[in-house]
Amino acid sequence: MADVLAAVQTGPRAIELRSFERPLIGDDEALVRVEACGICGTDVERYRGGEPQRYPVIPGHEPVGVIEEIGPAAARRRGLRVGERVAVDPFIPCGACRHCLGGMHALCTGWGAPRTYGFRLTSEAPGLWGGYATHLYVDPASVLYPIPDHVGPELAALYNPLGAGVSWGVHAAGVTVGSTVLILGCGQRGLACAIAARAAGASLVVVTGLSIDAHKLALATELGADAAIDVERADLAEQARAITAGAGFDAVVDTTPGATGAVLDAVALARPGGTVVLGGLKGAAVDAFPVDRVALGALTIRGMRGVGAAAYREAIALIASGRFALERLQTHRFALADAARAIEVLAGEHPGERPLNVLILPGPS
Amino acid sequence: MADVLAAVQTGPRAIELRSFERPLIGDDEALVRVEACGICGTDVERYRGGEPQRYPVIPGHEPVGVIEEIGPAAARRRGLRVGERVAVDPFIPCGACRHCLGGMHALCTGWGAPRTYGFRLTSEAPGLWGGYATHLYVDPASVLYPIPDHVGPELAALYNPLGAGVSWGVHAAGVTVGSTVLILGCGQRGLACAIAARAAGASLVVVTGLSIDAHKLALATELGADAAIDVERADLAEQARAITAGAGFDAVVDTTPGATGAVLDAVALARPGGTVVLGGLKGAAVDAFPVDRVALGALTIRGMRGVGAAAYREAIALIASGRFALERLQTHRFALADAARAIEVLAGEHPGERPLNVLILPGPS
Amino acid sequence: MADVLAAVQTGPRAIELRSFERPLIGDDEALVRVEACGICGTDVERYRGGEPQRYPVIPGHEPVGVIEEIGPAAARRRGLRVGERVAVDPFIPCGACRHCLGGMHALCTGWGAPRTYGFRLTSEAPGLWGGYATHLYVDPASVLYPIPDHVGPELAALYNPLGAGVSWGVHAAGVTVGSTVLILGCGQRGLACAIAARAAGASLVVVTGLSIDAHKLALATELGADAAIDVERADLAEQARAITAGAGFDAVVDTTPGATGAVLDAVALARPGGTVVLGGLKGAAVDAFPVDRVALGALTIRGMRGVGAAAYREAIALIASGRFALERLQTHRFALADAARAIEVLAGEHPGERPLNVLILPGPS
Amino acid sequence: MADVLAAVQTGPRAIELRSFERPLIGDDEALVRVEACGICGTDVERYRGGEPQRYPVIPGHEPVGVIEEIGPAAARRRGLRVGERVAVDPFIPCGACRHCLGGMHALCTGWGAPRTYGFRLTSEAPGLWGGYATHLYVDPASVLYPIPDHVGPELAALYNPLGAGVSWGVHAAGVTVGSTVLILGCGQRGLACAIAARAAGASLVVVTGLSIDAHKLALATELGADAAIDVERADLAEQARAITAGAGFDAVVDTTPGATGAVLDAVALARPGGTVVLGGLKGAAVDAFPVDRVALGALTIRGMRGVGAAAYREAIALIASGRFALERLQTHRFALADAARAIEVLAGEHPGERPLNVLILPGPS
Repeated sequence: MADVLAAVQTGPRAIELRSFERPLIGDDEALVRVEACGICGTDVERYRGGEPQRYPVIPGHEPVGVIEEIGPAAARRRGLRVGERVAVDPFIPCGACRHCLGGMHALCTGWGAPRTYGFRLTSEAPGLWGGYATHLYVDPASVLYPIPDHVGPELAALYNPLGAGVSWGVHAAGVTVGSTVLILGCGQRGLACAIAARAAGASLVVVTGLSIDAHKLALATELGADAAIDVERADLAEQARAITAGAGFDAVVDTTPGATGAVLDAVALARPGGTVVLGGLKGAAVDAFPVDRVALGALTIRGMRGVGAAAYREAIALIASGRFALERLQTHRFALADAARAIEVLAGEHPGERPLNVLILPGPS
Repeated sequence: MADVLAAVQTGPRAIELRSFERPLIGDDEALVRVEACGICGTDVERYRGGEPQRYPVIPGHEPVGVIEEIGPAAARRRGLRVGERVAVDPFIPCGACRHCLGGMHALCTGWGAPRTYGFRLTSEAPGLWGGYATHLYVDPASVLYPIPDHVGPELAALYNPLGAGVSWGVHAAGVTVGSTVLILGCGQRGLACAIAARAAGASLVVVTGLSIDAHKLALATELGADAAIDVERADLAEQARAITAGAGFDAVVDTTPGATGAVLDAVALARPGGTVVLGGLKGAAVDAFPVDRVALGALTIRGMRGVGAAAYREAIALIASGRFALERLQTHRFALADAARAIEVLAGEHPGERPLNVLILPGPS
Repeated sequence: MADVLAAVQTGPRAIELRSFERPLIGDDEALVRVEACGICGTDVERYRGGEPQRYPVIPGHEPVGVIEEIGPAAARRRGLRVGERVAVDPFIPCGACRHCLGGMHALCTGWGAPRTYGFRLTSEAPGLWGGYATHLYVDPASVLYPIPDHVGPELAALYNPLGAGVSWGVHAAGVTVGSTVLILGCGQRGLACAIAARAAGASLVVVTGLSIDAHKLALATELGADAAIDVERADLAEQARAITAGAGFDAVVDTTPGATGAVLDAVALARPGGTVVLGGLKGAAVDAFPVDRVALGALTIRGMRGVGAAAYREAIALIASGRFALERLQTHRFALADAARAIEVLAGEHPGERPLNVLILPGPS
Repeated sequence: MADVLAAVQTGPRAIELRSFERPLIGDDEALVRVEACGICGTDVERYRGGEPQRYPVIPGHEPVGVIEEIGPAAARRRGLRVGERVAVDPFIPCGACRHCLGGMHALCTGWGAPRTYGFRLTSEAPGLWGGYATHLYVDPASVLYPIPDHVGPELAALYNPLGAGVSWGVHAAGVTVGSTVLILGCGQRGLACAIAARAAGASLVVVTGLSIDAHKLALATELGADAAIDVERADLAEQARAITAGAGFDAVVDTTPGATGAVLDAVALARPGGTVVLGGLKGAAVDAFPVDRVALGALTIRGMRGVGAAAYREAIALIASGRFALERLQTHRFALADAARAIEVLAGEHPGERPLNVLILPGPS
């Protein structure tokens, strides 16, 4: 059979196509032929040389593809056959630490650090640890989620942002029928939170963004949000008060990366007894954090890291339901050879582009 | 002001119109002008002379109306004004026992027995304890739920069956995005469970009924159920296996009154680790209860009594969302003078009628 | 019968004894003869003229006493008789708002602001709204907790700090068998948290304090804490690492008033996936709040306000169990005439005293 | 190194010592030198020829021992070294199915059926799948729980019944500070439930048994139960009413194997809103199951299968606390050569013996 082709990052802003020998697949292993792989902000950081600065790696931790080869033990254990489509969990749990045993793989302490697709070096055999490649190695400890037959690979690749949407915007936010939810930020994870909250029965979903995000805010309302607020043109607190008749939101989900002020907004706009979900990383501490407001308002604040298996499964069910026009989120598709450009587009380095969910399609074109 | 007119049950199958003096409303009391009041199976039992056989009473424990008069203390405490529309909780909590303090009013032990609208004697001052009347007395301990302005009284009267739908079909069933749910029974509470489960993001909602329920089963699918099974024409277990690919349902909600076999179906068709919700009363014990199936399947069984305040509030939000064609549930409307006939229609005593949600409209016609 | 005697605060640092007419007790009301009333930090603030500056009031919101008179309706509804000992919930819920219906009385929005014993003016009939008095008025909406016969009034008066101990140190902290808990602060609420956490099965309970708190830290270990750390003499982070073998604590409960640094300690010392409980008010915002640590550590932060009915009930069960030498917490008892001095002692204004739980005993001496 | 010696069951009531070649331990595997292994009712059934009738097997699914050999990958992944003492989870999760990913290993569907120590055939390489042996093979997918240094192997072997005690008597029962709990049955799991409920702060723990269990009932009260009821000499319902002042128990945990009547007792004696935990298998269906009592009492019934990782970890913390005289549970110790007799003693086939926790000690004597 043919070799494996992969986009390998060899240093900051340096990605090149390389061939790898197709690995021998053992009794409890498998090989996935990658059909689509989403890109997220972490890929951008890594591309620009952010931590961890270890190379070479095949990026890509949101892969979807079909089982091309699977060992007999893996097939029996996983109940999977050649030809089935699966999404691959970014984290490879150790299965032994308290966090993995409790279903919180992202906190895994078992290997020293969590093993994550897109971040292991190609020097760790068999090397194929990233989704920007024609093929991906499935470790005995990897977690796979079956994709229903009628869902194509591109839509399926939304399992990752929508998994965060379910995890942050439903599970952590405690959203159920009739909940009121404010989503700070309208990137793909913000929109995914809005969709997931709507799907879970929220009666009021409001999304915020900047003036530059006008198209994303428009998309938010098309996808089901009741209101979208441009925080540069309107006073968020005033709008929030008007929309909730002064009550505040049952839940506020902060998906904004880097914006420390959003944390203060979140704490200010949750109703007494409400919940604040912290999804986006800030890279800085927050000053003037109103700790007494947290106590007097009996708020619950949940820091989010990683996405649990249940949330991924529910996200796939949501995709499969066909209830939302999720293809509207998918703005760009790139071939493997254009991986660097794909990342740059998501990073906003190419003026005129309006990226949301950007895909690498490693298949033959 | 004019007197109050009420349909008073004086004995089995005996209901007559009576006038009551309009009560003086104290500082912490209120009077509601009833616009609509739903009828449920308990009204039928009571009509036929079932327990408790104490008369006379004004039936009706699902009332919706507008505040016609309210004392200053009640207005301040409740944040309500004359003219606002409210739904009235059937139970009047004591506010002192552990169950009331924990939000489970239906288990109230405070008064000896729960105080319930539609069941207190007219001899207990001021007598107006039922919804089949032009006016209803609001005790200081009564619980009211505000209805949004844009929701009319008839739709609002669905707060009661939909409250059960949310309580049984979402809260107790643990339904969230992607859940699979089987609802046994297609009366108004069964359909309400299906709607609520759908609203909460269930990816698979299946409803069952008898051949005589064909129109209700058809309505179930129109309102959003994925499948409706006539258990007299198809093998339920076989169908369930086919629909869930052998996996069983995340939750099975039994809403059928009197059908002990449905309990066995529920336990048989829940997936390992799943939940069984027992909503309908059976009036008989169940033989051959498969207790080891409960243990080996790690099932959770929840017996349901009453509906919590959160579920009523969420049901009202669901009605207000306009997302479901709920008016399809509302098959009959009767004037106060026709209360007996209204009950008989719901009871199925009038051939040719196909009742679901039946309303008494006590207002001037 | 004799008049009621009460210690009335008429302004900052001004308390005087006054006589009140014994109120007529209506059908749904009661009168409690106060046997003991605890003092908390809020009493100190109020004494010194802190908000809300409305006078005159009878302070005291931790009262225990016996039913001296009760109306027939109240007796029936509450299942109480003359002579029974009860603890009185500080908050008088409206019973109508979503928070009261959900059991979170402290967030009550029903009266405009929560009605609280010790804070209502004597001008609001019948005036007896405080525990620093021979008698206390029981409103129809007041919440009472029965005290088992074998528990005396002084020990019973610990229901309030121990209620916070259960609420913060067990419920909010999620403590169960084998949990590891760090309690920041060793005032009566800190020690109560330590006791409650131990009672709930925590396998490791550590308490912190200042050098001036040496006797409280000693008491902490006598009452069951595994370790007590003087944060002025030892490096807390280092000690915490040593004690937990680097793992961090399942829960960190910050009970310290005014100490903003403790919030940073709490966030730093909780284990990944752990919980931080914010009990003490700070009166200031926190700078350099490590929001990314909350996200990356998947921490849950719970702001606490008020104590739920379940926690009070559990605290009373804990007192009644006799399992802990709780009398060790009770350092001072004062007659009604010495209320001002009692508050000053708790405030630390009387050098040489080492107050923890300070009681007013209004009974005949 | 020396060969492995194991007690191998070759058919009903047939156990013989056999030698096995010491397996080569791969990179992600380990070998445990077994120090102690508990026996449970399942061993008795299997000994007598119960399902599954597949031989030969090395029985024993409650093993404790020290790591004698461990591959580099396993050591790194598990954070374990040679010489450390561990308890071994009976179940070997697949790590891939929804149940394993959710922490409910006992419902694992990944291998077709759960892989369990003590039940895999010796023909499945490397054969050492049971605790009645000098050595046990640790599969990459096996779950190990570290035992603190100061806990000896015999006490540590209680991790299994106490794990059930925590799972059934605390987690499933919802026991916290002040809970009232009735435990039906006083075998080692019943007593373990009583101990765990006490450890979690239950204020009332009552245990039941038969007249033949007099010594176990006595032990129950010595270990902390408030009351022990011989159901053959006293009327259980009457006693329960007296002890709870008519209120019923917050939780009733049925640990009795084979006794269908206990299920009816459990449902009858739980308080409204309470919980029934079904631990023991009955081998028969239950007639006259009072399903309306479940609904009207708003009861929750939880069927239990297997024990989660958190419960085992908490049980080990409970053992390590030294708070209970757990050695009192350990009535018998047998050498490997006496495995058959050990099982027979637990089965009650040896008159005069009063077994509770029975151990096999495979070590050199």
